[in-house]
Amino acid sequence: MADVKTPRLTSKGRATRARILGVAADLIAKRGIAGTQIDDVRRAAGVSGSQMTHYFKDKRTLIKAVIAWQAQSTLDTHTRPELGHLDSFEALRRWAGSTVERQRERAFEGGCQFGSLAGQLVESDAETRADLAAGFEQWLELFRKGLLAMRDRGDLRREADPEALAYALLGAMQGGLLLSQTLRRVEPLRDSLNAAIAHVESLATSNP
Amino acid sequence: MADVKTPRLTSKGRATRARILGVAADLIAKRGIAGTQIDDVRRAAGVSGSQMTHYFKDKRTLIKAVIAWQAQSTLDTHTRPELGHLDSFEALRRWAGSTVERQRERAFEGGCQFGSLAGQLVESDAETRADLAAGFEQWLELFRKGLLAMRDRGDLRREADPEALAYALLGAMQGGLLLSQTLRRVEPLRDSLNAAIAHVESLATSNP
Repeated sequence: MADVKTPRLTSKGRATRARILGVAADLIAKRGIAGTQIDDVRRAAGVSGSQMTHYFKDKRTLIKAVIAWQAQSTLDTHTRPELGHLDSFEALRRWAGSTVERQRERAFEGGCQFGSLAGQLVESDAETRADLAAGFEQWLELFRKGLLAMRDRGDLRREADPEALAYALLGAMQGGLLLSQTLRRVEPLRDSLNAAIAHVESLATSNP
Repeated sequence: MADVKTPRLTSKGRATRARILGVAADLIAKRGIAGTQIDDVRRAAGVSGSQMTHYFKDKRTLIKAVIAWQAQSTLDTHTRPELGHLDSFEALRRWAGSTVERQRERAFEGGCQFGSLAGQLVESDAETRADLAAGFEQWLELFRKGLLAMRDRGDLRREADPEALAYALLGAMQGGLLLSQTLRRVEPLRDSLNAAIAHVESLATSNP
């Protein structure tokens, strides 16, 4: 995801580039990738054709940058300081609650903007798939680190596998989001996350 | 999903229509919807332009029929007689094992063909979203029925909620499939399904 760094841009240039990416991500969330043309993005961002070409030479370059930008943006949203480090049962429940609330506020439209990019692009080409995998890996690492800390601290039993639990938490989140997005109701996301967290809790040292 | 029934076709016509749908579903799984043009489908199915138009007047009509066809085909694959009715812990584990094996055989390419359609089309228009929701509902009903039978039989405790557990099982499946497809490895799907089934098992009457 090298495109995310563009050191040769001025700070104004970086701001323009970020604005274009934000606009592109929003349009894609609303219309899908196939329904979003580079010229729609250019118009919505209010930049000229030559400016657009300066930052993104074609749709493929733009999509690649949107993947990296969306991975970082999703991660930032979900790791706001008030959510903590996902390294306690309480933090996991807060994270699940805030994930559910965010979708409810948006009436379940758009789902996970990163997962949605993945669903649309995963079979397009090997490089894009690798970029998407790198985005998911950032998430997995966040869960793994938190779960490992919980096991090291003795909150989780020794047999708890942070790797396996990280997959289960991210899987529940992605599947729950797609189902809630499609069915336009809260239950699939809420119940998927609750089940995954209940499973983590079942591995607590002091499990009653 | 009315398009799935076409009573006015002859048996030969129905076979041709089904062949076109199978070819379209395969191409879409490989290239995505945006990368699949109606003329590619026509050529791959070996039908003439006028035949194609006879069955599917445009890409939209074709995609709508592919959704219904894929929902039924996915359901048929997962409810083969040897898998039983998903109404016991054993049947749920067999279903999870066979889901994992099928993905492994395909080297995790394509993911869930129905979930993948959902990911690509969910924000396209309200009617398409309703068709996708109907497909997921067929799945949910299958899980709910099995879980309800388990509760009625006394395998699951009274407080077990078949509705919530059905969402958790389908969520784990969809999320696990998307992650395994993107990361091209078995763990996300296997661990997501294991966690969801372990949660169902934690509600067993004779939970040790």
